[in-house]
Amino acid sequence: MSQASHPILLTPGPLTTSDRTRAAMLRDWGSWDSDFNQITARIRQQVLRIVHGEGTHECVPLQGSGTFSVEAAIGTVVPRGGHVLVPNNGAYCQRIARICKVLGRELTTIDYTEDRQVSAADVDRALAADPTITHVALVHCETGTGVLNPLREIALVVARHGRGLIVDAMSSFGALEIDARKTPFDAVVAASGKCLEGVPGMGFVIVRRSTLEKCEGNSHSLAMDLHDQWVYMGKTTQWRFTPPTHVVAALDEAITQYFEEGGLEARGGRYARNCDALISGLAALGFRTYLDAAIQAPIIVTFHAPDDPKYDFKTFYQEVKKRGYILYPGKLTQVETFRVGCMGHFGEAGIPGAVAAVAETLKAMGIRQVSAAALA
Amino acid sequence: MSQASHPILLTPGPLTTSDRTRAAMLRDWGSWDSDFNQITARIRQQVLRIVHGEGTHECVPLQGSGTFSVEAAIGTVVPRGGHVLVPNNGAYCQRIARICKVLGRELTTIDYTEDRQVSAADVDRALAADPTITHVALVHCETGTGVLNPLREIALVVARHGRGLIVDAMSSFGALEIDARKTPFDAVVAASGKCLEGVPGMGFVIVRRSTLEKCEGNSHSLAMDLHDQWVYMGKTTQWRFTPPTHVVAALDEAITQYFEEGGLEARGGRYARNCDALISGLAALGFRTYLDAAIQAPIIVTFHAPDDPKYDFKTFYQEVKKRGYILYPGKLTQVETFRVGCMGHFGEAGIPGAVAAVAETLKAMGIRQVSAAALA
Repeated sequence: MSQASHPILLTPGPLTTSDRTRAAMLRDWGSWDSDFNQITARIRQQVLRIVHGEGTHECVPLQGSGTFSVEAAIGTVVPRGGHVLVPNNGAYCQRIARICKVLGRELTTIDYTEDRQVSAADVDRALAADPTITHVALVHCETGTGVLNPLREIALVVARHGRGLIVDAMSSFGALEIDARKTPFDAVVAASGKCLEGVPGMGFVIVRRSTLEKCEGNSHSLAMDLHDQWVYMGKTTQWRFTPPTHVVAALDEAITQYFEEGGLEARGGRYARNCDALISGLAALGFRTYLDAAIQAPIIVTFHAPDDPKYDFKTFYQEVKKRGYILYPGKLTQVETFRVGCMGHFGEAGIPGAVAAVAETLKAMGIRQVSAAALA
Repeated sequence: MSQASHPILLTPGPLTTSDRTRAAMLRDWGSWDSDFNQITARIRQQVLRIVHGEGTHECVPLQGSGTFSVEAAIGTVVPRGGHVLVPNNGAYCQRIARICKVLGRELTTIDYTEDRQVSAADVDRALAADPTITHVALVHCETGTGVLNPLREIALVVARHGRGLIVDAMSSFGALEIDARKTPFDAVVAASGKCLEGVPGMGFVIVRRSTLEKCEGNSHSLAMDLHDQWVYMGKTTQWRFTPPTHVVAALDEAITQYFEEGGLEARGGRYARNCDALISGLAALGFRTYLDAAIQAPIIVTFHAPDDPKYDFKTFYQEVKKRGYILYPGKLTQVETFRVGCMGHFGEAGIPGAVAAVAETLKAMGIRQVSAAALA
């Protein structure tokens, strides 16, 4: 039953967690009980500590996957007559756009190719041109490709225009800096099973308190109403509806380890080292990254698939998995790619081990031509 | 870290789970991986088996608490112009009514006092009187009090009128019979952390396939769109958005034990014996149940609080907890009550142990007058 005998997950989440984190799930908690509600309170407090949002912001946890929290943030923070600008350079930006449409919020997008960063100047121009835009919804690290968007610059532009900012920080939160004292935002959304290295099953939204106070009645949903969740939690210390108690306990334990490790700097540093080792290790085998190094977040890396007729992703995946590592498919429609995550609790040998597994797989599949460049 | 040293949960869920179920969470799973998706497929199949819905119905799992699945069922199955009749005899009926209001579905209620069963004849009259009603939303076992509603009779009435039926079977599913061959329904909603004795964090909706096929575009929400979740799962075997992998693995393990135990008959039988032992044990101490025995479901029992000035729920709760059992507060506004659940994985000594803990607590608190009747 131990994790040791199972593959390491090099995916955008769920990811490999520590034994301590998983062991925290070996106990059942009463969701009404104060012992449990102290855990909830501690998580909310520690999450605020990570963004230096104590005093100005509130952390509202929510059941479900990260997307549930993204939808809840849009639905709660953007009034029904609001208008959302989505700078779109990937799959998760498109998901936010889709949420806006389903929720009936007016939507404008700025469309980029997926290998480009969002530009603060473009956001500036779009806001200047259309005063009806009430909110910008930005993906911090676009997990579809791994591109890092310039959050702080964009946040300053949005603030200067007096509009609201909602940040999907799903795959960056806890590893890349988001400092509420320097980066103005209305809502930052993240989840348990990403860089905090908990297990999946809950998300949370960090909302500016003065914003949240005005959000009553905005939500299209009862279950996803963050204002209602916040008010109820304030009154009772409890979640409105049954919390995923074991997931919550695991996240609490994961956050304890996060601070033991040294917090954001240590976590982000470890992922950056993983990312460097991954890119240089696979480069030595001939693999090319999809993104320029300058815009690559140290979270997940998209590689071009081998340019060899013997390659197919399914076999590649299975062969690497046999050797102990789980990779992730690409999410691009035009180019054949695969992705490798840099996050998760695995030892120093994790990335070199994965690179070795890929090398062996290439041999086993008889793939010699990894990229056109490698031939030259 | 073991559960043995922690209190037994006699609550409506989360409840006490088995060591095997919790141990299933000690492994991390890739949510894209076929090993994991086989677990999802098995759960969906086994859930259908419980209601004999193979061939006619589909099981669509959803992230979040049971309420998320209830809202998803209303939002997906009831068209935006639909009209929902909610026979209302408790807190969870009221929650459905609130969901209908937030979702903008027209709503009619039949209101009962909380100590009364819903009547099929009333539903019959309401449907006859108002042909604009498209759906009835019924709570099977109203967890607010523990009253069992006559699902089959009502289902037959609703079918005779040609309307749709959505059943919140949160606290009955797996312990009380729901047979799709005999009880016509469009959707039955339940969750992982109730009578199936998994951990909380996901729900599922069993939807008649011919109904589900017509539900595209109904949903008010992207994350809660059961049609979209179903279509995507059918195409890919995966969840649309990150599943709570550990919760899913635990539910799979819990369902295996469910069938090992003997399925619905065995599970329902065990809870019925727990319920009898609880009611007779506490009756011997002078406690009276809030409901008549004839309408009491063997799931959770509401007791009148002791009629003694020395009683207060908080102290009572803490004292019983010290002795190893977690009770639940009442949910009635007019009468002071507390609730005790009959579900969960605890040995034969569980209920007698809880009764003994209550007896000792009464002594410790100096409560002599449990009920006016006991005095006489």
